[in-house]
Amino acid sequence: MGKVLVFGHKNPDTDAVTSAIAYAHLKNKLGMEAEAVRLGELNEETAFALKTFGLEAPRMIEAINGEVEQVILVDHNEKQQSVSDIDTVSVMEVVDHHRIANFETADPLYYRAEPVGCTATILKKIYKEHDVEIPKEIAGAMLSAIVSDSLLFKSPTCTEEDVKAAKELAEIADVDVNTYGLDMLKAGADVSKKTAEELITLDAKEFQMGDATVEIAQVNVVDEQDVLVRQAEVEAAMKQKITEKGLKLYLFAITNILTNDSTAIAIGAETEAVEKAFHVTLSNNTATLKGVVSRKKQIVPVLTEVMNG
Amino acid sequence: MGKVLVFGHKNPDTDAVTSAIAYAHLKNKLGMEAEAVRLGELNEETAFALKTFGLEAPRMIEAINGEVEQVILVDHNEKQQSVSDIDTVSVMEVVDHHRIANFETADPLYYRAEPVGCTATILKKIYKEHDVEIPKEIAGAMLSAIVSDSLLFKSPTCTEEDVKAAKELAEIADVDVNTYGLDMLKAGADVSKKTAEELITLDAKEFQMGDATVEIAQVNVVDEQDVLVRQAEVEAAMKQKITEKGLKLYLFAITNILTNDSTAIAIGAETEAVEKAFHVTLSNNTATLKGVVSRKKQIVPVLTEVMNG
Repeated sequence: MGKVLVFGHKNPDTDAVTSAIAYAHLKNKLGMEAEAVRLGELNEETAFALKTFGLEAPRMIEAINGEVEQVILVDHNEKQQSVSDIDTVSVMEVVDHHRIANFETADPLYYRAEPVGCTATILKKIYKEHDVEIPKEIAGAMLSAIVSDSLLFKSPTCTEEDVKAAKELAEIADVDVNTYGLDMLKAGADVSKKTAEELITLDAKEFQMGDATVEIAQVNVVDEQDVLVRQAEVEAAMKQKITEKGLKLYLFAITNILTNDSTAIAIGAETEAVEKAFHVTLSNNTATLKGVVSRKKQIVPVLTEVMNG
Repeated sequence: MGKVLVFGHKNPDTDAVTSAIAYAHLKNKLGMEAEAVRLGELNEETAFALKTFGLEAPRMIEAINGEVEQVILVDHNEKQQSVSDIDTVSVMEVVDHHRIANFETADPLYYRAEPVGCTATILKKIYKEHDVEIPKEIAGAMLSAIVSDSLLFKSPTCTEEDVKAAKELAEIADVDVNTYGLDMLKAGADVSKKTAEELITLDAKEFQMGDATVEIAQVNVVDEQDVLVRQAEVEAAMKQKITEKGLKLYLFAITNILTNDSTAIAIGAETEAVEKAFHVTLSNNTATLKGVVSRKKQIVPVLTEVMNG
């Protein structure tokens, strides 16, 4: 067997990058020639995490281009989220915590998915099952992934297993979870150097709700005023997307990682749906969504219900 | 959460039935209300295994019919192999050792697939991970599944992990692997009460190879003469299927579980492909395929290559 590439999804977040590093390391220890790679630029949070623990960023690739015959996917399985020429290689393993869709193999494989908050939590178990020690710097990277995906254990996607794994990893990495975790989240929440266009597109997803197309973007901040002082500029960027994409609603959630509330900016023909879904009144196109941090669990389902009704 | 049904594939074999029993037992121990069911009649091998270890056959169901909202699949994942109304329920877990195809979920789930010879081998690991003891009778049932899927460790699908699991399970079940294993395989290899039609359809699969449709059936025996004395009757049944289904080739593999060779009966326009694929000459429509026991690994690939060439 030749070399195997290990990678997370496109537009990689901290879990996608560090899980590739952690699993490639384990595979090397078990005698496989594996290399972690990434399918896009590092965000600032991930760069902070790697720097803190003295890890190199994995090599960035655009496509497999015949380099290997076999790959391992972490933190994703859906084809459209993976490398562009995924159909040219054989997927020998998957370790993931998402739903399964648009995924098919010709042969049996190792597939490990668990409904936890972070891929790193599953990888920690797999290290233990193989009785391989997690090096200090890799423990730090895995901890960073859990902090990132769980917003320091505040997200409703976070499970008891994630909290337990994070505590054990913090001990190995020799850091204080809360101090380091907040520093890392803050590094990713620095919006000062981002353009309005970047703010609303860096983490934006499109959804079909009833007959309407809705875009929901999210950004983490330590103070929502850092974005709200540029509200006019941000709204102009949102309006342009509405026109370009024919959206009925653009919802931008500015999530405060210190208070764990979000400020919503809502623009479009269907803003009333936001008021109904969250029982709020928009004022100057904005409203506070108390305790809302998860798009997947706290925004998409309620908004879908109102839009479908 | 209400009750959860646990089941293997349609036309259940020993792994499909006993893995449902074993996993439902573990889930009950872990506090879930789970019931093993089956999607078809027991074959004689499985009936022998359950009787030996004093286990009841799981209840047979045709469909979910609104009985539960959540199910656990073992030993399969492809929709067409599952319960007819699988789309009306949520799949909360899968434990399997096959390729993944035609499978999709709306939500994250626990999915555990490993490229080993038998689902029971994976279940044994999961018992250990949860630190739950395997009762004697369930260990016997799990051992039966490994013996069945691996043809007593002779199949090329069998891995070191399967052998290791079987040995440990035999110790818990307090049986001699080889003595019990052969007895069980023999119980499934009694062809005396089967009609010619049953012999060629009980384990038959259709394949598209190049432009041709090919049917490959297999039966286990302790003496190939038990089938060959009825060759004329069997060939008549095969010819009828060729006409009905427009087949270019019908290959019937009579697998001797004592010698681990198969005797092939080949009928149809493309029997030459069998001669080329296995480097044999058909005589009276038959040929011995030395060391061939696995349709999946030793028949389908070579025959496909010849038919495509």
